[in-house]
Amino acid sequence: MVKEGITKVYTEYITFNTKNRRELIRITDKIKEAVKKSSVKEGLCLVSAMHLTASVFIQDDEEGLHQDIWEWLEKLAPFRENYKHHLTGEDNADAHLKNLITHLQVVLPITEGKLDLGPWQEIFYAEYDGQRPKRVIIKIIGI
Amino acid sequence: MVKEGITKVYTEYITFNTKNRRELIRITDKIKEAVKKSSVKEGLCLVSAMHLTASVFIQDDEEGLHQDIWEWLEKLAPFRENYKHHLTGEDNADAHLKNLITHLQVVLPITEGKLDLGPWQEIFYAEYDGQRPKRVIIKIIGI
Amino acid sequence: MVKEGITKVYTEYITFNTKNRRELIRITDKIKEAVKKSSVKEGLCLVSAMHLTASVFIQDDEEGLHQDIWEWLEKLAPFRENYKHHLTGEDNADAHLKNLITHLQVVLPITEGKLDLGPWQEIFYAEYDGQRPKRVIIKIIGI
Repeated sequence: MVKEGITKVYTEYITFNTKNRRELIRITDKIKEAVKKSSVKEGLCLVSAMHLTASVFIQDDEEGLHQDIWEWLEKLAPFRENYKHHLTGEDNADAHLKNLITHLQVVLPITEGKLDLGPWQEIFYAEYDGQRPKRVIIKIIGI
Repeated sequence: MVKEGITKVYTEYITFNTKNRRELIRITDKIKEAVKKSSVKEGLCLVSAMHLTASVFIQDDEEGLHQDIWEWLEKLAPFRENYKHHLTGEDNADAHLKNLITHLQVVLPITEGKLDLGPWQEIFYAEYDGQRPKRVIIKIIGI
Repeated sequence: MVKEGITKVYTEYITFNTKNRRELIRITDKIKEAVKKSSVKEGLCLVSAMHLTASVFIQDDEEGLHQDIWEWLEKLAPFRENYKHHLTGEDNADAHLKNLITHLQVVLPITEGKLDLGPWQEIFYAEYDGQRPKRVIIKIIGI
């Protein structure tokens, strides 16, 4: 089960510019393409938001669950006027808190040239303060 | 402090089938064995749940704290009937939300052939919807 | 975009001993120095708390937002007397729960010899139970 080889590193950036302020976008296929382009057979793939008001996480691609997630996030990290961060002119403190709960990144295993995900695992980009260009980095390291 | 070498990658899967719906299982020893089998001396070890309703995290192996964690998780992501996800016939939306809070994975440092953990750090598999076979992947990369 | 090379691994520990029980400390510069010392040009940098009552996360270096984060964390994982963990003589169960929400670690991409962060991303060490020496590990792997 131990494999050896020359290390390869591959980098790619994806830009999102969502129509809505909050969106959940399935990005599994984009990550699969990046893994293919990397030619890495065994390794790790970091997928990480490059902003503070978005997340990358793994969940189920089920519309009802997505609604549950949005309702729940709004309850735990509600949009409201009177955050101290808003004294700077911003209005997105809730988006920062939503990022803290759901975390900005995942690290994915690559096995035999493919993302080694469980049966229902899909990768999502969660936008909490969109309508402007925002980036995600994909960094793959392996053999 | 910079070490060089040939890259090795090691993969292992662990299957859990818990008796109870919710369980917290200490898996530090299993991960230590995997690190030994990998023969990696310096590197990273990803431990990641392959499902959407379980987590892997690092915490203290103290029974009182575990009870606190369960009570707290139940408060932040309560089990209840009327999640939209349940229209699909599922009843585990709370388990998805518990996964989102506690995150599905950890990345562990390996130094001098051993997991480089702090004095009280133990690795746990947290099952939020068990009583069926569920897998965790261990992916080790290093020299 | 695929780069190849000999694998290097670099390890460093940072010790914090905060004056206050709770503190948020910007550590971006320390991590940048470690990346320089590693001489890694392309790879991953794990920054992980070695304790159960502290976190490492990425957020904005804005004082108002930091106050929002502290208030919010206190609401979601409040300090109180009657946690079961406190039967052991400890009084820091809230710090364990705050760690679970904000996660203990981040994995950072390194590109062209530099941390590949977004425009506002700063790395923070969040201390939830300080006033004693506590460590963070930096583990860098790449080419």
